[in-house]
Amino acid sequence: MWRCLKCLPERGRIGIFNRSYYEETLVVRVHPELMAKQKIPKQLVTKNIGEDRYEDIRNIERYLTRNGVVIRKFFLHVSADEQKKRFLERLDNPAKNWKFSSNDSRERGFWKDHMKAYQDMICNTATDDAPWFVVPADNKWFTRVVVAAAVIDALESLDLRYPKVSEAQREELAAAKKELTASDDL
Amino acid sequence: MWRCLKCLPERGRIGIFNRSYYEETLVVRVHPELMAKQKIPKQLVTKNIGEDRYEDIRNIERYLTRNGVVIRKFFLHVSADEQKKRFLERLDNPAKNWKFSSNDSRERGFWKDHMKAYQDMICNTATDDAPWFVVPADNKWFTRVVVAAAVIDALESLDLRYPKVSEAQREELAAAKKELTASDDL
Repeated sequence: MWRCLKCLPERGRIGIFNRSYYEETLVVRVHPELMAKQKIPKQLVTKNIGEDRYEDIRNIERYLTRNGVVIRKFFLHVSADEQKKRFLERLDNPAKNWKFSSNDSRERGFWKDHMKAYQDMICNTATDDAPWFVVPADNKWFTRVVVAAAVIDALESLDLRYPKVSEAQREELAAAKKELTASDDL
Repeated sequence: MWRCLKCLPERGRIGIFNRSYYEETLVVRVHPELMAKQKIPKQLVTKNIGEDRYEDIRNIERYLTRNGVVIRKFFLHVSADEQKKRFLERLDNPAKNWKFSSNDSRERGFWKDHMKAYQDMICNTATDDAPWFVVPADNKWFTRVVVAAAVIDALESLDLRYPKVSEAQREELAAAKKELTASDDL
């Protein structure tokens, strides 16, 4: 989670993470050999490493929540059919050729394994404070409506307001206005 | 812990934190009014906030340990008598005047409260993986010996070695040496 923790915005600001630390609970489950490349000391790559990572994520997200950070997580689910359509479009449309990766295409052979890893990850890391939104993503307009609505709900739940102006401050404002109005234009 | 997490060194490097996130479990206990200045949403400043912070610290340090980070924590304990001596020295020695703070001096009135907060914090956050070393610090040479010994122990426990050179690599090295020796000097 180091990469992401280093980029955490300060309290009061909004940060958007594309992919984020959840990667480390997904592709390494489908292709365990990738873990070996991560240079983690051998004795730390235990049988429970998957569960431990879920636990660490839950704990750190709870820590953030306790400190006033509001977390919303979105899983954009593209169906197998739609993915095939998009890959073919990348092959057929010269303007999209650059987007095509034969690696992505080959990874379709592990579709079911990926779905299992996603499901397991979501079940283990969805909490009241840091919920997952699983969003159907075959139609982009629909995805956007769902995500925007969830973000608006989260913002409204904070009941944000402008700071209250005290009587003394109000008098100060009135005095400033009087002075400004009376003064010559520059 | 945000300030410190942002400065976490990558795996394989050594980082030294002077004070660190433990501050947030100490002075706010002695002077709870300081918490009010931190702009934490009111509903999050609960009765359990002290315990919750200990729990968050333990969890995040465990997460780091699981990812190959070795944590050693040092509490340098200066006695009340020695502190008084050092403060007087700062008042009497013109070269040390700049170090004196009447705030620090006034804080001696809360000595027992601070000791209680330190003790509570150490009891709640000392773990096998992230132990506290409580180091007598009235004599600087002694403090340094203790800290250096603990750091050396931690490094030796890692059993670090240069990467092993394979037979093929050894042949490559021999070939390079031959070539280098045979070539004209530049």
